[in-house]
Amino acid sequence: MSEEARPVSRSRSIMTELVFPTDTNHHGTMFGGTLMKYIDKISAISAMRHCGKPVVTASTDSLDFLAPIRMGEAVELEAFVTSTNRSSMEVYVVVRAENLFTRDRRVTCTAFSTFVAVDENGKPVPVPPVIPDNEAERKLFDSAPERYEQRKKRRSQRFSSTE
Amino acid sequence: MSEEARPVSRSRSIMTELVFPTDTNHHGTMFGGTLMKYIDKISAISAMRHCGKPVVTASTDSLDFLAPIRMGEAVELEAFVTSTNRSSMEVYVVVRAENLFTRDRRVTCTAFSTFVAVDENGKPVPVPPVIPDNEAERKLFDSAPERYEQRKKRRSQRFSSTE
Amino acid sequence: MSEEARPVSRSRSIMTELVFPTDTNHHGTMFGGTLMKYIDKISAISAMRHCGKPVVTASTDSLDFLAPIRMGEAVELEAFVTSTNRSSMEVYVVVRAENLFTRDRRVTCTAFSTFVAVDENGKPVPVPPVIPDNEAERKLFDSAPERYEQRKKRRSQRFSSTE
Amino acid sequence: MSEEARPVSRSRSIMTELVFPTDTNHHGTMFGGTLMKYIDKISAISAMRHCGKPVVTASTDSLDFLAPIRMGEAVELEAFVTSTNRSSMEVYVVVRAENLFTRDRRVTCTAFSTFVAVDENGKPVPVPPVIPDNEAERKLFDSAPERYEQRKKRRSQRFSSTE
Amino acid sequence: MSEEARPVSRSRSIMTELVFPTDTNHHGTMFGGTLMKYIDKISAISAMRHCGKPVVTASTDSLDFLAPIRMGEAVELEAFVTSTNRSSMEVYVVVRAENLFTRDRRVTCTAFSTFVAVDENGKPVPVPPVIPDNEAERKLFDSAPERYEQRKKRRSQRFSSTE
Amino acid sequence: MSEEARPVSRSRSIMTELVFPTDTNHHGTMFGGTLMKYIDKISAISAMRHCGKPVVTASTDSLDFLAPIRMGEAVELEAFVTSTNRSSMEVYVVVRAENLFTRDRRVTCTAFSTFVAVDENGKPVPVPPVIPDNEAERKLFDSAPERYEQRKKRRSQRFSSTE
Repeated sequence: MSEEARPVSRSRSIMTELVFPTDTNHHGTMFGGTLMKYIDKISAISAMRHCGKPVVTASTDSLDFLAPIRMGEAVELEAFVTSTNRSSMEVYVVVRAENLFTRDRRVTCTAFSTFVAVDENGKPVPVPPVIPDNEAERKLFDSAPERYEQRKKRRSQRFSSTE
Repeated sequence: MSEEARPVSRSRSIMTELVFPTDTNHHGTMFGGTLMKYIDKISAISAMRHCGKPVVTASTDSLDFLAPIRMGEAVELEAFVTSTNRSSMEVYVVVRAENLFTRDRRVTCTAFSTFVAVDENGKPVPVPPVIPDNEAERKLFDSAPERYEQRKKRRSQRFSSTE
Repeated sequence: MSEEARPVSRSRSIMTELVFPTDTNHHGTMFGGTLMKYIDKISAISAMRHCGKPVVTASTDSLDFLAPIRMGEAVELEAFVTSTNRSSMEVYVVVRAENLFTRDRRVTCTAFSTFVAVDENGKPVPVPPVIPDNEAERKLFDSAPERYEQRKKRRSQRFSSTE
Repeated sequence: MSEEARPVSRSRSIMTELVFPTDTNHHGTMFGGTLMKYIDKISAISAMRHCGKPVVTASTDSLDFLAPIRMGEAVELEAFVTSTNRSSMEVYVVVRAENLFTRDRRVTCTAFSTFVAVDENGKPVPVPPVIPDNEAERKLFDSAPERYEQRKKRRSQRFSSTE
Repeated sequence: MSEEARPVSRSRSIMTELVFPTDTNHHGTMFGGTLMKYIDKISAISAMRHCGKPVVTASTDSLDFLAPIRMGEAVELEAFVTSTNRSSMEVYVVVRAENLFTRDRRVTCTAFSTFVAVDENGKPVPVPPVIPDNEAERKLFDSAPERYEQRKKRRSQRFSSTE
Repeated sequence: MSEEARPVSRSRSIMTELVFPTDTNHHGTMFGGTLMKYIDKISAISAMRHCGKPVVTASTDSLDFLAPIRMGEAVELEAFVTSTNRSSMEVYVVVRAENLFTRDRRVTCTAFSTFVAVDENGKPVPVPPVIPDNEAERKLFDSAPERYEQRKKRRSQRFSSTE
C-alpha cells in the first residue's frame, strides 16, 4: 500500500560554494542570510530525492553560527533525510567551511529542517519511510521523535501567544 | 561605566518587500531561503540600531513557515531587540504576508535571532541593556533568560555529538 | 458609485535596507541604480495598498542624490500616496541614510512617482481618492495638480521632439 | 590649462539586454526598477568615457514609461554626454524595446542624468567640454542650460520644504 | 520557399557593462562565470535578431581569458551571426575590456557559440542564410564549415567516451 | 624541491543546485549562462583544492548543451583535476540533470577548463602533479597533453587573426 522504505544514502546531497564578494556583509565575512538560503536549497533537494514529490519548507530549526566564514573560503553543505512522519521529512544539514590554502576544515553550522510533500494542489501526501545506513544516522533517526515533539510544542506556543 | 539602558523603540525596524518572480521557487511561492535572508538583514539592522556597533549573527532560532506566500503579495518584517546579555542581543522578528488586493494580512513566520557586538578585531564588546516599553515587550523580555539557557544547552549538545 | 476616499496612512510603507558590498559601485558607495530599484518597489507597494489593484509604473520624477551612501549604512525609504487622478496615483518617497554607529540620519533623496491601476487586461481602472491626514500631507496634496500638469507637458514635449 | 573639448561620439555607449524572468514584476512585464538600474549603469559608463575620471550620480531626471516591456523582448539603451558644466556632465539616454520576432522597435523611455567627476577623495574636479557632432546633438546641447537651471531650482525647493 | 538571406549587420549586437563588486571573485578581478553569462546573453540576442525566432544554446566554443579584467573597468561585447546551417546559427563574440581612465582598450576574449531556432514545442525550424558585409566577416563565413565539422566530431567523441 | 604529487580524489568537488525561476530564460528552461557560471565556480574550487593557492581562469573549452534543463530539476556538477603543467591545471566537469520526480538522470554537459595558480602579485607559480586513481581518470590524464597542444594552437591562431 504505502511506498517502500528508502536508505538514507538516496537523499544525501552535497553543495560546494565559493564565498564571493557578493555573498559577504560589510565586515567581509559571509552573510548569514546567504548561508540560510543555501541550507534551504540543499535541504529541499535532499527531501525531493527521498520522496520524489514536490515539497514545501515547514520549518528550519535553530541555526548556530560558530565562527565567521571569510571571503575566498569554500563552504560545503551535506544534507540527508534522517526521519519521516506521514507527509513530513526531517532533513539534517552540516556546513563545513574550508580554507583552500591551509586545507583547514571546520564545522560551521548544523541545522534540522522539516519539509512536507505535497500534490499539485498543495495538499500533503504520504512519504516513504527512511532506513539509516550506519550508527551516526541511526542516532539521528532515534532522536527524531523527540525533536518532532519539541517542534509541535514550540509551534503551538508561538502562534497562540505572539501576535 | 557601562552604557545607559535604551528603550525597545530605538531598535524597532521595518522592511516591506514585494514578492517577485526572482524570489519564488518552482511552485510559484516564496522561496524559504529568501525569507531567511530578509530576516537576517532586518535583525542585524535592529541589533546595530540598539548597540551602535558592528554585529555578527550568532544564531537564528527555529523558523516556522505557517503557509506559503504567493508571488505579488507584500511581506512586512518587524524586528526589535527583546533582551541583552553582556555582548549579545536577542532580536525578535515577526513576518506578515499581505494580499494587496483583498487586504488580508496574516502572521507567516516568527523568529528569534542572537547577535554579538564586536570591535574592529571581531572581539565581543559589551552592549547596553534594553527597556521594554509595553506589556508584550515585557513578556518577551521576561522569557528571554529561558530561551538563552535553551540555546546554550542546544549548542553544547549539538557540537559535541554531531560530526 | 466610485469608491470611498482613503486616508494617506493606509498607503504609508516603509523599507529598511542595509548597504552590502553587492549594492555598491566601484567607489564603495551605494550604486544609484540599486536605490532606484528600491524606490520603485516601495512606491508600487504603497500604490497597491491604496487602491487594492495591480499597478504599473507610469513615471518617476527627478531623483536628486544629495550625498553618497556608504557600505554598512542603513537606508530607510518611506512612501505614501499624496494625490490621485482617475486611474493614476502620485506616490512620494523620502530616503534617509543612517550611520548605525553615530546614529547620524540625513535625507538623501526624495522622489515622486506615478502609478496607474490596471485590470487583468492592463486597461486603466479608477482609483479611490486620498485624504491627507496632516499639514505636511495636505501641502503635498495641494501642490499635486501643478506637478501633474508639468508631467503632461514634459511627456508631450519629450516624445514629439526626441527620437 | 583646461582639457580639450571632446566630440559626443567619444561618450556614446550602448547596452543591449534580454528581459528574463528575473527582471520582471508579478505582471510578467519588466520591473521599472531594473530598467532604472540599467539607465544608471550605461549613463555612468558614458560619463566616464567622456571625462576619463571617476564619477558619482548627482541626479536622474524624470523617467516616463510609455508602455510595458515584455519578457523575452530585447531592450537597447543608448547614452551620450550632451553638455558639461565645470565638474558636471549631462547624459541623455534613450531606451528602445524590441520584439525579436516581429522586429517591432519602439522608444520606451528617455532620461537625462547628471554626473559629477571626482578625485580620489570624492572632491569635484573639472571635466572637458563636449562638441556636438550633428543637428540632434546640437539641439540637446543648446537646451541643456535651461534644464540645468530647472534642476538647480527644483533641488533648492525640494530640500528646503520637504522633511 | 525558404526565407531570404540577411546581412550580418542585422544581427550585430552590443552590450557594455561596468565591472562592479558583485561581478568580481575574491581576487578583485572579474569572475569568469559572469563574463560567460554576458556572452551567452548577447549571443542569444544576436541569433534572435537574425532569425526572428526563439533560440536555444547548442554549444559555446572554447573561451580564452587573456588577462584579468579589473573592478571599475568597462567590458564591451560585440556579437554577430557568422554563418548558418539549416536550423543552427554560429555567433561570434569579441570582448574588449576598457580602462575608463587611461582609455586603454584590449581584446580580452573571443568565442563562437551555436544556437538552434525552435518552434513553440522546442522543435528545430529552418533559419535564413546570412550574407557577410565585409572582408573580416567573409573570412569567418568561409571558415565556418570547418568549425562546424570540428564541433560534430567533438560532440560524438565526448558523449560516447566519457561517463 | 617541487611539491609532492596529489591524488585526483583530493580535488573532486560536487555542487548540486535546484533550477529556480531566476535561473531560467524566457522559455522556462535553464539559462546557458547560469550553467557556465556554476561550471566556472566548481572548477575553480577543484583547482584550489588541488594546489592550495589562488587561481585564475585561463580558458574554458567548448561546452555542448545536449538538452534543455527544466525549472524544478536538480543539476549536479562534478569536477576534478585531470592533469597539470607547471603552473596550470586542467579541470574536467561533468554536469548531470536530474528529474527529482522520475529520478531520471542524464549527462547534460561536459567541459574542460584550465586554471593557473598565482601568487599575491598575480604571477604564475608551480603546482604539484596529479595522480589518477582509476582507469577513467587515467584516460583523461593520458589524453591531456593532446588537449593542451590544441589549446596552444587555437589561442595563437585566434588572437593573431581576429581583431
